[in-house]
Amino acid sequence: MSLLVVGTMAFDTVHTPFGKAENIIGGAATYISLAASHFYNKINVVSIVGEDFPKEQMDAMRERGINLDGVQVVPGGKSFFWEGKYHMDMNSRDTLRTDLNVLADFDPIIPDSYTKCDYLMLGNLTPQVQMRVIEQIPIRPKLVVLDTMNYWMENEMDMLKKVISKVDVLTINDEEARQLTGEYSLVKAAKKVLTEMGPRYLIVKKGENGALVFYEEKVFFAPALPLEEVFDPTGAGDSFAGGYIGYMAKTGDLTFGNTKRAVVYGSAAASFCVEKFGIDRIMEVNSHDMHDRLMEFVNLMQFDVEITKMW
Amino acid sequence: MSLLVVGTMAFDTVHTPFGKAENIIGGAATYISLAASHFYNKINVVSIVGEDFPKEQMDAMRERGINLDGVQVVPGGKSFFWEGKYHMDMNSRDTLRTDLNVLADFDPIIPDSYTKCDYLMLGNLTPQVQMRVIEQIPIRPKLVVLDTMNYWMENEMDMLKKVISKVDVLTINDEEARQLTGEYSLVKAAKKVLTEMGPRYLIVKKGENGALVFYEEKVFFAPALPLEEVFDPTGAGDSFAGGYIGYMAKTGDLTFGNTKRAVVYGSAAASFCVEKFGIDRIMEVNSHDMHDRLMEFVNLMQFDVEITKMW
Repeated sequence: MSLLVVGTMAFDTVHTPFGKAENIIGGAATYISLAASHFYNKINVVSIVGEDFPKEQMDAMRERGINLDGVQVVPGGKSFFWEGKYHMDMNSRDTLRTDLNVLADFDPIIPDSYTKCDYLMLGNLTPQVQMRVIEQIPIRPKLVVLDTMNYWMENEMDMLKKVISKVDVLTINDEEARQLTGEYSLVKAAKKVLTEMGPRYLIVKKGENGALVFYEEKVFFAPALPLEEVFDPTGAGDSFAGGYIGYMAKTGDLTFGNTKRAVVYGSAAASFCVEKFGIDRIMEVNSHDMHDRLMEFVNLMQFDVEITKMW
Repeated sequence: MSLLVVGTMAFDTVHTPFGKAENIIGGAATYISLAASHFYNKINVVSIVGEDFPKEQMDAMRERGINLDGVQVVPGGKSFFWEGKYHMDMNSRDTLRTDLNVLADFDPIIPDSYTKCDYLMLGNLTPQVQMRVIEQIPIRPKLVVLDTMNYWMENEMDMLKKVISKVDVLTINDEEARQLTGEYSLVKAAKKVLTEMGPRYLIVKKGENGALVFYEEKVFFAPALPLEEVFDPTGAGDSFAGGYIGYMAKTGDLTFGNTKRAVVYGSAAASFCVEKFGIDRIMEVNSHDMHDRLMEFVNLMQFDVEITKMW
């Protein structure tokens, strides 16, 4: 019984209209595992870092029940680096620099102790690496979740489609859903993904405009929490995915009803993530904060129907 | 006991990526009163049209309980005309042409039989005209709702602020909320409107990204229904306002809890509006369709919390 998270661990330099943070801890696997650790504590990570990645950060993650035995540390190597600049609306950004460094030669090796995982979360990486992970898991997990991005659609579409055909849940943003399917309408895009491409669930992330979950003929919407200030959106999508998969792993309930709850917990995790630069906020909140935040989502979303008044 | 709707009745020419419709019936008061008529049938309209406005359309509205005694028909005059073109995303548009025609000299005259209204919905018009309406209502209605747009913020901000200070509910879009308050964060913008400008409610319309309702320290989010095809967004905001005010008038319940229901009904009305060009769809649906659509929103938005599983 465990959750396996595969993805980058990295350094980021982030420019926002409110300031700049240089060489802070980032990476998909970092955000995903930290967000998931608020819900679940049998988390195994497969990633690759250089010697420059801080030992203290890895210790802090281990203290939260995150096993890092599958993280390759390359002697003398440098960790993956990303630099980006957010626009005023904080919903769009430009990538200023990407240094693959040790990620360029990443060949994921799943430790034997990791292979019996029930939940597998594949963070955004080359589709080839994602496929190499799937091939090393002998017994199919209960739930396989894949995150990816437009870059792989432009450069590795065939391989990406092969990986997508092997997963249960695909998480992408609205533009990527359109690019992947050639359908402008998200409802039509979802139909194509769910009937032709393999996944049983499509989660469309829309940043500050929330997330849509498509399953069979059904659809559920989880809004983003309106905040006084969004400080740094970096990692919000990964925190969302981490909260979602962490809650799914915790409960072991794969129904659509539980998936709705899980994506709201994911939205709660994302809402914390953006309140400070990098991983600071997702590291400092506790289960009480998460509970209070969930109540804010209940108030934001729930209403009494009382149909009898009308008809 | 009645609802007074003041706004334009007009002709529109609409270009969308899917086609073009020329000289079709439009106007804020038309959409608002038609959407409200699905919930409430004591609706009075104040507007102005030319001799070219079809008598059959006015008869069809009267059949739905919409009283048009307050609509001035200018002999030999031409009705207000708007032409616009939607972009591929259907969430933004360019105005190609605006002919004020009879609207240029609109001096609203509220018939005596209309002045005892409990609900007043002021559709988008010059702030001067909106103020002239408010001045003619001797007893303050239970609920006054104001719609406006960026054009008046750019050209008539002082007068607009005077009108805003006299209403209970302000409905604008996200960009207009920023323009009105100078605050980028919608949460901060809402705080400014609710504590400094007069209204008790701020409803921020975000098109396909739903609507936010701010009241005191609280916020509620009503998503837009994801649709296979959005055919023509014209009138969606007015249909939303009409469904909302129609349900408020029907129930007579001014609480925040009932307001939540009302904005979801508004979203249901808007979701029908966009399914065909102009007013066609909002004219043809019935209360059963509205009920079925509401159930789709319940499925889209509701989830069971079951917190005990977590903490």
